[in-house]
Amino acid sequence: MSSSRGKFITLEGVEGVGKSTCIEVIKSVLEAAGKSVVISREPGGTSVGERLREIFLDEGEVRMTAHAELLLIFAARTQHVHELIAPALAAGAWVVCDRFTDSTYAYQGAGRQLPEEEIARIEDIALGSFQPDLTLLLDLDAREGLERAVSDAEADRLESEQDEFFERVRNAFLQRSRQMAHKDRYRLVDASRPQDQVHSQIREIIKHFLNQTAEGKKR
Amino acid sequence: MSSSRGKFITLEGVEGVGKSTCIEVIKSVLEAAGKSVVISREPGGTSVGERLREIFLDEGEVRMTAHAELLLIFAARTQHVHELIAPALAAGAWVVCDRFTDSTYAYQGAGRQLPEEEIARIEDIALGSFQPDLTLLLDLDAREGLERAVSDAEADRLESEQDEFFERVRNAFLQRSRQMAHKDRYRLVDASRPQDQVHSQIREIIKHFLNQTAEGKKR
Repeated sequence: MSSSRGKFITLEGVEGVGKSTCIEVIKSVLEAAGKSVVISREPGGTSVGERLREIFLDEGEVRMTAHAELLLIFAARTQHVHELIAPALAAGAWVVCDRFTDSTYAYQGAGRQLPEEEIARIEDIALGSFQPDLTLLLDLDAREGLERAVSDAEADRLESEQDEFFERVRNAFLQRSRQMAHKDRYRLVDASRPQDQVHSQIREIIKHFLNQTAEGKKR
Repeated sequence: MSSSRGKFITLEGVEGVGKSTCIEVIKSVLEAAGKSVVISREPGGTSVGERLREIFLDEGEVRMTAHAELLLIFAARTQHVHELIAPALAAGAWVVCDRFTDSTYAYQGAGRQLPEEEIARIEDIALGSFQPDLTLLLDLDAREGLERAVSDAEADRLESEQDEFFERVRNAFLQRSRQMAHKDRYRLVDASRPQDQVHSQIREIIKHFLNQTAEGKKR
């Protein structure tokens, strides 16, 4: 409803960390503040993106090479940004997305060990300088996340990877959250605590961000 | 059957130029020379690649952005090379492929006007220096190709593009066939002539290439 550009919020973290319920919390805080909210996810988000997601997560397929995964994910992502995210933001909506580019650095970079520099080159072509305005990193011991995920019966190919892979992914997220180019948009959430505490912290983060945004406008 | 590496032959050209029948001609010449032959196509070639091809050619989908197309095509291509083409060549088979990277420079580059430099950067990440050993460019006036294709009832999204688009594509193929880095592997075939003449020229090209290859080995 607002005529100014909306904000782009992403959630990141290893499998099983509880992103889905956190997105509901974020949505309710934003809507209570009068924002119109669009929820999306990656890989996916568009019709083409969801079809690519299916291929990407299909256990029955021959395993894709790391480079094929990387290119497929950015194909879906550039379509997602141009078809859905950017138009929604331009229309004043706030977009909340389950995973975005940070996951690619963590999973295809640290996890599958593609050079960060290659990811950056493709990111540059696919997205230019497009970045989230706010990123919540739900941090959890990788082993614990994996156990939660499996108990949720989410059996996709990523979850069949070993502990060591997930430890690399977790550390990549943490490292990225401290990088000069990214730390301003990152908020770290300790997801090992009871759910109500995690949700309460997320509510505070979003409220604070809403205030910052409102103050930024007044200036 | 041979213990030496096979050769990688690609066919390029605008829609409707008759690549499919030419591939049969190439196959029969190679098999007569005792080569084992693998036929493939792009986009496609692997299980994942064929699923990506379906999405790419689906008229019902929202049109992909040029960048999404570019990344999707190279995702399929790097998988194709690693899963099928390179192992087949290593096993001594000759691989004949309907379209390859040259088509991307022609269609996504000249056609959809993506910068050549962006395509080259992604090609480098996806394929390194991997190139065909021989490329047959079936050249035809774009308008004529389009009419042939439509009469063949191949109605995919590319064929719904305008003449001007195909003229750019045709010229891009011709230009690329003259580039220093590529001209040695290119053979130009005038596809406007009667089919028997076209096929006869293709037979000669393949026989000559087989001789070159055999001589190269003797040295």
